[in-house]
Amino acid sequence: MKKHDQDFMRRQNKITVYEMIKNFSPISRAMIAKRTGMSATTVSRIVGELSENGHVSEFDQVSAGLGRKATMLKLIETSVLSIGIELDKYQFKIGIVDVNGALVYSSDHKRLPQESADTTISNIARLLQQIVDLEGVNPSRVAGIGIGLPGIVDSERGEVVFSVQLGWKNVNIAKRLSALTGYKVAVDNELKVRALAEHIRGAASGSKRTALIGFGTGVGSALIIEGNIYRGESNSAGEIGHITIDPNGALCECGKAGCLQTYIITSSLLNEAGKIRKVASLDEIFEARQSGELWAVQLIERALTYMAITINNVLCVYNPDMIILSGEWIERFPEIRHEIEELCSNRFVWEPLRNTYGLQCTSLGGEGVMIGSGLLAQTCFFTLE
Amino acid sequence: MKKHDQDFMRRQNKITVYEMIKNFSPISRAMIAKRTGMSATTVSRIVGELSENGHVSEFDQVSAGLGRKATMLKLIETSVLSIGIELDKYQFKIGIVDVNGALVYSSDHKRLPQESADTTISNIARLLQQIVDLEGVNPSRVAGIGIGLPGIVDSERGEVVFSVQLGWKNVNIAKRLSALTGYKVAVDNELKVRALAEHIRGAASGSKRTALIGFGTGVGSALIIEGNIYRGESNSAGEIGHITIDPNGALCECGKAGCLQTYIITSSLLNEAGKIRKVASLDEIFEARQSGELWAVQLIERALTYMAITINNVLCVYNPDMIILSGEWIERFPEIRHEIEELCSNRFVWEPLRNTYGLQCTSLGGEGVMIGSGLLAQTCFFTLE
Repeated sequence: MKKHDQDFMRRQNKITVYEMIKNFSPISRAMIAKRTGMSATTVSRIVGELSENGHVSEFDQVSAGLGRKATMLKLIETSVLSIGIELDKYQFKIGIVDVNGALVYSSDHKRLPQESADTTISNIARLLQQIVDLEGVNPSRVAGIGIGLPGIVDSERGEVVFSVQLGWKNVNIAKRLSALTGYKVAVDNELKVRALAEHIRGAASGSKRTALIGFGTGVGSALIIEGNIYRGESNSAGEIGHITIDPNGALCECGKAGCLQTYIITSSLLNEAGKIRKVASLDEIFEARQSGELWAVQLIERALTYMAITINNVLCVYNPDMIILSGEWIERFPEIRHEIEELCSNRFVWEPLRNTYGLQCTSLGGEGVMIGSGLLAQTCFFTLE
Repeated sequence: MKKHDQDFMRRQNKITVYEMIKNFSPISRAMIAKRTGMSATTVSRIVGELSENGHVSEFDQVSAGLGRKATMLKLIETSVLSIGIELDKYQFKIGIVDVNGALVYSSDHKRLPQESADTTISNIARLLQQIVDLEGVNPSRVAGIGIGLPGIVDSERGEVVFSVQLGWKNVNIAKRLSALTGYKVAVDNELKVRALAEHIRGAASGSKRTALIGFGTGVGSALIIEGNIYRGESNSAGEIGHITIDPNGALCECGKAGCLQTYIITSSLLNEAGKIRKVASLDEIFEARQSGELWAVQLIERALTYMAITINNVLCVYNPDMIILSGEWIERFPEIRHEIEELCSNRFVWEPLRNTYGLQCTSLGGEGVMIGSGLLAQTCFFTLE
């Protein structure tokens, strides 16, 4: 066996030992050797390297029955960090995420909706450097920066292709932010990173195929298969809001008629409500429904019906084991969850799929996009060498 | 490095060399060593083992310019075979498939629609043994049997959960056929194996994410990601025919209202046509359309519209690089392809996805399910040891 093969093997073994400690701690050297089939010498050498590099520490565990002491290993969570950013119309959030997806720091910052890409990006860079300095983060520990935002993102090129909310078109945020900060930068659609966060650390932990649905300024979904974001050819997989429901339906902001999201998104409802009276927010429609105003009852009920239909449609195409609901509707009016579930089980979910999935609301809430972006950066840029 | 690690390494290297020869033949030992970084000694040892086991053969290639002779390697395609079966209401087909997915033998056999599972399975077993004997196939070369059929299949358990076409419910065809033949048996929905065949050997070869859509007695789809069938939690991913289009629409045979397939499937159209006059086949509706009968024009145009909508919806959720159309509609009336494509590009495909995919009709036709089933069996059961 030549040197090249041995190098490959060493790297593989190192990753294996690291993952064992990450996923099964507390665990001893002997247990790792037994489970992986590696020799005790190999395991000890690798553990030595990992602890030298600050990834792993030892502690003594006394067994309850016999009082015997064993030396166990655990990960030092902060040995690998990443910066997770949520970028939206009126604000951005900066978080520091550890190797388990825990948020060890976070802060919110205002953004002016008409702000240029240059201004936003240099504001992010400046604040981010301040935070790294103030928090005493060792830059060599930072695997990279992840950014989640609403819009169509070319994740391979690191480019925001189009974002209505930010008012951006063809902005290569990855390249620009990387030039300003020196860190590697990954960027993706907010729903995709949120789904990743819920899958790894949130309401969908333990799931093998998680579908996250967002009901808000748009309707979208994201699919995580065995820990990986499913992107499709142009990172547009999951655009469930633009499946056509009615070829003669209402016009969608995309220019097509009868898109699924025209029945659900806030702007549609406000627009429709305007036929009756001027309404400024979803809250007002909910209030009107509460006091029994027919138009509001109709609008909300139709929206909930199409949310249940969205859930059925996601089940039929992705057949996930877990569906996570997120977005303005779910976060601000959590009581609708039960109405949607009833519509699902009484009418809208295809029978063979009725007992194949769990349904949850996001558990990471306002932290989800930061955590997911941070985890994305670790996936893209963290290596053990 | 202990023995266990070396065994693992040897196995990996063997698979690597095998795949190199399979995918890049003609290729020499030196080229393999260069591309993999393995030593010349390692490559020679593995090639020796592969040729001893009948997987690989040598041939001399004379270069055009200099006339130098090089010893190249190629796969012996028939060193690994599998049996691919298509099972349907009125017939089943048995094929012998080689390691590249080529059909080296095939035959058609009648099935009575009211036939019990026991009868069908023992007929298949008997005929299959006769074929293996007559064709002089060495049973030790047969990796296993694959079966593709219409219906809901539990591919893990090898069970037909429910098939309207076969009239079967909870039939463990894999276990039964394996007991009768001695071969390992894999079973799956026909669209999933057909998609696999088109992806590996047919119209979608070279694609990374293939979506196949079937328009026939039902409407369904299948997604192949990097050569693997995407199944979902209960092997129901791709059931696009049961996404809800209209909560108040026509009743579907599944019991739900307004399923996408109600606008497309043959039985729906015959049923609707019956309001005007008794019609026995899709051909009659097409003829009536040809002679300008309004009802037929309406029915076909509506169906084509919803086929274009199906394509848009598949694009939005899976974002594939290639869509393959299959099923009765496409196979018997190929002229509709252009009408569907026009509807797609003029009206129904969401703009950001317009230039992200190719559209093809099945190229394997009546052989697709046999080939896909055979390839499935090889994926499940073929190992190099």
